[in-house]
Amino acid sequence: MKRKVLGHDLKGIVVQKLADRGVLLTDIAHLVYTMQLPYNPDLTMDTCLSHIEAVLAKREMQHAILIGIELDEMAENKWLSEPLQSIIESDDPLFGCDETLAAGACAGYGSIAFTTFGYLDKQKVGVIQKLDSRPAEEVHTFLDDLIAAIAAAACGRVAHHVRDDEEGQYLKETRVS
Amino acid sequence: MKRKVLGHDLKGIVVQKLADRGVLLTDIAHLVYTMQLPYNPDLTMDTCLSHIEAVLAKREMQHAILIGIELDEMAENKWLSEPLQSIIESDDPLFGCDETLAAGACAGYGSIAFTTFGYLDKQKVGVIQKLDSRPAEEVHTFLDDLIAAIAAAACGRVAHHVRDDEEGQYLKETRVS
Amino acid sequence: MKRKVLGHDLKGIVVQKLADRGVLLTDIAHLVYTMQLPYNPDLTMDTCLSHIEAVLAKREMQHAILIGIELDEMAENKWLSEPLQSIIESDDPLFGCDETLAAGACAGYGSIAFTTFGYLDKQKVGVIQKLDSRPAEEVHTFLDDLIAAIAAAACGRVAHHVRDDEEGQYLKETRVS
Amino acid sequence: MKRKVLGHDLKGIVVQKLADRGVLLTDIAHLVYTMQLPYNPDLTMDTCLSHIEAVLAKREMQHAILIGIELDEMAENKWLSEPLQSIIESDDPLFGCDETLAAGACAGYGSIAFTTFGYLDKQKVGVIQKLDSRPAEEVHTFLDDLIAAIAAAACGRVAHHVRDDEEGQYLKETRVS
Repeated sequence: MKRKVLGHDLKGIVVQKLADRGVLLTDIAHLVYTMQLPYNPDLTMDTCLSHIEAVLAKREMQHAILIGIELDEMAENKWLSEPLQSIIESDDPLFGCDETLAAGACAGYGSIAFTTFGYLDKQKVGVIQKLDSRPAEEVHTFLDDLIAAIAAAACGRVAHHVRDDEEGQYLKETRVS
Repeated sequence: MKRKVLGHDLKGIVVQKLADRGVLLTDIAHLVYTMQLPYNPDLTMDTCLSHIEAVLAKREMQHAILIGIELDEMAENKWLSEPLQSIIESDDPLFGCDETLAAGACAGYGSIAFTTFGYLDKQKVGVIQKLDSRPAEEVHTFLDDLIAAIAAAACGRVAHHVRDDEEGQYLKETRVS
Repeated sequence: MKRKVLGHDLKGIVVQKLADRGVLLTDIAHLVYTMQLPYNPDLTMDTCLSHIEAVLAKREMQHAILIGIELDEMAENKWLSEPLQSIIESDDPLFGCDETLAAGACAGYGSIAFTTFGYLDKQKVGVIQKLDSRPAEEVHTFLDDLIAAIAAAACGRVAHHVRDDEEGQYLKETRVS
Repeated sequence: MKRKVLGHDLKGIVVQKLADRGVLLTDIAHLVYTMQLPYNPDLTMDTCLSHIEAVLAKREMQHAILIGIELDEMAENKWLSEPLQSIIESDDPLFGCDETLAAGACAGYGSIAFTTFGYLDKQKVGVIQKLDSRPAEEVHTFLDDLIAAIAAAACGRVAHHVRDDEEGQYLKETRVS
């Protein structure tokens, strides 16, 4: 009997796929830490990692990662039909489906996620930069955008949770016992 | 001292503003119930209401509601400058900022929310239809899109939670011992 | 020498790919006609077709169509890796990358395009309905959303052009010669 | 008789409103020039200006500018109701309707526009930076996002037109006879 694919399984699968493509969760956590530290001086790498874990538990993000990495690998193996093969292989700057797919997956995390995605996608820092300097036969047209999206979503999550904590604290302090 | 506006307060404020504009949470729950019943035969109005409450607890949605109702009321009182006053007052079909604002607020709830928003916005059923037949001096240019967005977000939430429950159940049943 | 793929070529290629998958431009024109006739009583099928042609000349739309049909065909041939193969093959309702990709491609056509996309995606009329009743071995997980997006984009284009024409006419009539 | 507001008039009105708020089209052209020069060494300020003019001719962008500046001015005059007045006046970083509205208006210009918007919104260069250092009694919560959106849309337009020109040139050169 065909086994159902559960959301719970999918998280482990996408973490493995990211690792197979050379990206560890700590690489992404570095991006989150760098982007959010100016706003949250108490931020730790552990906190960043736990927000990334939460982001990777969502179906929308899992599906985007599966699609993107599949297309990168297909292009690497030259298994796509033309003209798609050439478009993805050459990472044509006017090809935008990679950004659309990735941005869609971080849409749920508010405007901070949204602008952080644009920034990371443009600046190509950390692990995103490293992917760019990998051997020419590797294709990471979708992967760099996916990493930007995971990091951006986690940044949005950090920012909203910090505020929630402050407000919870405020409520406790101002409550009349 | 200026009191901080907390997310916790905001929820009560937006529920009150919606009621002041003639929209009760049960009106919105009817939309959710109608849209999701075909997919979830066990759905109850109470479940719909609790998903709407969760949606209204989010800052993004609260802010969109505050902005939209403010602009509707300003237009009703003819307090906006021209040409904006005429554009909003006449609900120009090529004016799209109402849909942009509302759609942005339900972006976090996946593609079911997204397509449900488009459907409700086009079909104008239930309370959305009722708003359309209100006296001409009332302006609801933003309100009908906001209601569609709240209902659509709750629909997305219902669909994802039903699946989560099924998967949790499946995990329990298939777990050895 | 590798020949460059030009935007001009791409339009012919996507029209052919759509036809190979059983979708003619007239099928899509019927959707546009049905959706826009209530607002524009003078609308003709020819006008709808010319707007669809304009929509298919855009890179963003061409790329989305190439990606979507490629993934449908891969899934049909069972060439995708698991768990993606099962997710796309079964058209899981919580899989949203098809809507994200398609919606992104009609984002450039305003809020009418946006809400029309949601409506068509939900209602599944005309050719979209027909795809649903095709043999089980065919996979059209992405195709139905792409058709909704092409039709929705063309609807947005129709609505804006009708207004532009009216305003041009108005300017001519009110000009003091 | 109430005069119809035409798209043609609206362009002049939004250019004037931007100027009244201290933003000239040349300020925005500088952003476009800086962002696109690395990709297009032949780019001139004149070209950037003409793309900005084209962007400002679109209804979606005009409406977003009218709404955003209206809300900024209302907040400056303390004419908004609470809690919206405090939220907009303080430019709360978790308030995202300004980004949503602005991003929606540049959605039609592809993924380059999209990521450029995020970058400009985060980096706050040029005129956007200047707005940040204006007297405290001025409110520019929406204006900085609108400028980022106009510039980002023009960047997307530049990139696509450069490619269109190249392809036109290529077609001419490779055409037999």
